[in-house]
Amino acid sequence: MAESPITARGSDFAAWYQDVVLQGDLAEPAEIVKGCMVIKPNGYAVWELLQRELDDRFKAAGHQNVYFPLLIPQSFLHKEAEHVEGFAPELAVVTIAGGKQLEEPYVIRPTSETIVGHFFSKWIQSWRDLPVLVNQWANVLRWELRTRMFLRTTEFLWQEGHTAHATHEEALAEVLRILDIYADVAENVMAMPVIRGIKTQSEKFAGALRSYSIEAMMQNGLALQAGTSHDLGQNFGKAFGVQFQNQQGRLDYVWQTSWGVSTRLIGGLVMSHSDDNGLVLPPKLAPTRAVLVPIYRKEEERGRVLEAAHRMAAAVGAKVDTREGLTPGAKFFHWERRGVPVVLELGPRDLNAGSIVLKRRDTGVKEAVPQAELSARLAAVLAAMQADLYRAARARLESNTVLANSLEEVESLLGEVTAEKGGGRFVMAHLKNDPMCDARLKEFKATVRCIPLADAWDGPGKCILTGEPVERRVVIAKAY
Amino acid sequence: MAESPITARGSDFAAWYQDVVLQGDLAEPAEIVKGCMVIKPNGYAVWELLQRELDDRFKAAGHQNVYFPLLIPQSFLHKEAEHVEGFAPELAVVTIAGGKQLEEPYVIRPTSETIVGHFFSKWIQSWRDLPVLVNQWANVLRWELRTRMFLRTTEFLWQEGHTAHATHEEALAEVLRILDIYADVAENVMAMPVIRGIKTQSEKFAGALRSYSIEAMMQNGLALQAGTSHDLGQNFGKAFGVQFQNQQGRLDYVWQTSWGVSTRLIGGLVMSHSDDNGLVLPPKLAPTRAVLVPIYRKEEERGRVLEAAHRMAAAVGAKVDTREGLTPGAKFFHWERRGVPVVLELGPRDLNAGSIVLKRRDTGVKEAVPQAELSARLAAVLAAMQADLYRAARARLESNTVLANSLEEVESLLGEVTAEKGGGRFVMAHLKNDPMCDARLKEFKATVRCIPLADAWDGPGKCILTGEPVERRVVIAKAY
Repeated sequence: MAESPITARGSDFAAWYQDVVLQGDLAEPAEIVKGCMVIKPNGYAVWELLQRELDDRFKAAGHQNVYFPLLIPQSFLHKEAEHVEGFAPELAVVTIAGGKQLEEPYVIRPTSETIVGHFFSKWIQSWRDLPVLVNQWANVLRWELRTRMFLRTTEFLWQEGHTAHATHEEALAEVLRILDIYADVAENVMAMPVIRGIKTQSEKFAGALRSYSIEAMMQNGLALQAGTSHDLGQNFGKAFGVQFQNQQGRLDYVWQTSWGVSTRLIGGLVMSHSDDNGLVLPPKLAPTRAVLVPIYRKEEERGRVLEAAHRMAAAVGAKVDTREGLTPGAKFFHWERRGVPVVLELGPRDLNAGSIVLKRRDTGVKEAVPQAELSARLAAVLAAMQADLYRAARARLESNTVLANSLEEVESLLGEVTAEKGGGRFVMAHLKNDPMCDARLKEFKATVRCIPLADAWDGPGKCILTGEPVERRVVIAKAY
Repeated sequence: MAESPITARGSDFAAWYQDVVLQGDLAEPAEIVKGCMVIKPNGYAVWELLQRELDDRFKAAGHQNVYFPLLIPQSFLHKEAEHVEGFAPELAVVTIAGGKQLEEPYVIRPTSETIVGHFFSKWIQSWRDLPVLVNQWANVLRWELRTRMFLRTTEFLWQEGHTAHATHEEALAEVLRILDIYADVAENVMAMPVIRGIKTQSEKFAGALRSYSIEAMMQNGLALQAGTSHDLGQNFGKAFGVQFQNQQGRLDYVWQTSWGVSTRLIGGLVMSHSDDNGLVLPPKLAPTRAVLVPIYRKEEERGRVLEAAHRMAAAVGAKVDTREGLTPGAKFFHWERRGVPVVLELGPRDLNAGSIVLKRRDTGVKEAVPQAELSARLAAVLAAMQADLYRAARARLESNTVLANSLEEVESLLGEVTAEKGGGRFVMAHLKNDPMCDARLKEFKATVRCIPLADAWDGPGKCILTGEPVERRVVIAKAY
């Protein structure tokens, strides 16, 4: 595909995002399937790295991977009243199979709590069977009206964890353990700072007692819900009859949790670090960490440069771009757009000087490094880049977080914000966890992102809408 | 789940298979979704090991992973006449989404050649864009009438590779390269010997020019098609307008391949090695290679045994079964059914003797090993088991392969064979690659499994049905 210019962030953030995703070989819209995308090689490779980071942590915490069917009998969704209300408008329904009209249609899973509930009821009889800690990597489908690649697509890839416990206390500990894993991967792998919090009752998962989330701030100041962990209480246990005999010999319903992150994270990654030259990837999620571009003009330089290039690249695990018929400039441009953290340049002059040029993607800074020191310097530059990207994102989050003490103030701070124009912020205000309060914010398209778990601000105060006392300020923002 | 007896292979092979799968914690039927299963933790862990082995080889051969949409516009399937004829009867169709009847229904992918063809036509313009070598790990759906866990389920997990090339020669080299990767994984990882061959015209993939497969023999003598690699010719290129400008500046259609293996391989693994005591896994595909069961009767022995157990297990990467309230016998039984290759036993007497008992799953042989030699001995036993399982399966394949020189002979060898009773074989006969010939075999439910790539038998001969000369004997068998 030909490479075209990238829209500047400042002129149209949404167009910039689309350009970065396309030119970064991350994905492209699949216009022939409503709201879907094709995940391209660079995008899928980032997803594989993210999967590995997450999966290792889930397994270390005792979870096992399994796989449940894609199709769910339609009646299953109706067993939990809030759940069906939340998901019914977004379902894709299979009504014909094997050439025949089905007696009971199937829905394509929008999430799997219902089918998991069915199987938990078969697997769990006694406290000895608990906890059950399973996870699946799967595709799900939600028929969304407005879609954007990675951020909201009708089909997306995710992991969904499902656990069952003997007590509410244990389930809650699991919910928070997973929230910590999500925050750890977001901050220490994606270099994307997040706020951990509780969703308000009107923003919680359909069927949960309470939902927890991590919320990140994109470069345009909009919030992105980057992962959720749900305390399902006994809601699905009761809907699907998941009962167990407890240690006292009495029958009780299990306490369940569910939690997920999806390919949406890749959208968050793009909008956290990329720039007007295209994709910027933190080194820990870069499928290719370094590429070496050999430079030669005359045929007699070629052999010498290529020999040294391959030798040095092999020593540091870099890829050599040996493509013929492309200028070095075209190669630099190519790797820049794909977010490769470090590009190395090696030409006859560098060879004579015993050095090699190293260019860092985020800062654009070039330096000549003695060849003997390349390995150590490359490792140091990658580590510095990982840390700097996090620091920059953290500084942006902090400088765009402001306090507000009235609804008017919140509206004046957020009312004009759009995904395209940017200017978003996290507005911290005292607000009651009541659907009436959420509804007022919706008038200017803002939402409560979460009630933070930790109070980094000024403690209790009076709700800006009802005047009732609330424990702490909540995060209000415009969001994806 | 309570553990029940396993049916003997000799009395009912099909019931035995189902018991091994259930008791081995590999999968269970999802009776509420027609023909589907839940892949349980042990089964999914085997799949993850298989994925790793395959994926590493695909990537080493230059393939990149991508992800295409689950849903395909129904009209796409009609663009390739043979393809739609082959798959139409098995489709699941989405007719409602987002609460509305769809103008054009979508089918859930039974395989992705059509949607891949659509995108290849967007991605490929010039010979410089070729080859395109992509693969996806995905779920697919085929509405089958008779299903068996892993072997044939309406939904299954697989990988599907799709490539486009400038010449037929290159495409054919790719088809065979992949067939070799499949055979390598089957033989050297799964310990399952296979025959590489070409499918007859009536058994080829719907839409392919020619299909290649690897065929394995199960313990009941039935054949299992374990992987296929298709030479698609220019069929999909023409159907989807995938044209490129070749080096001579002329427009041409690309030459495509597609290839896949699925969770069916796990069924093949079970039916290759397992026994009347349950699952037997080759060490390379065992999620847990060794478990140590500590043995103590008196409370004062407990600490000493457990301390040594954890120390020794950690040194060799074994898991320690510390579950309380279970006898050592119950633990041995538990791990045996799950196919753990080696179980270690350690009690006070072993401690006093400075030894540890090692039991190998496939032979049941126990030996006392000096503790200092455990690591080396365990590695040697695992390697021997991997090699022995392959040798045994190879010997079975060879001793159950017979020649036949007439249709009557073929029928008398295969006519009475069933999956339940066993007694199957590979019957080698000269047969023309002609749908009329395949049809005659179907009268007694046998099929041509493949025309082997290499001739290990007696060369050319006359077709047992038409009398026409054919190059070599084909493999005829009853199959899953």
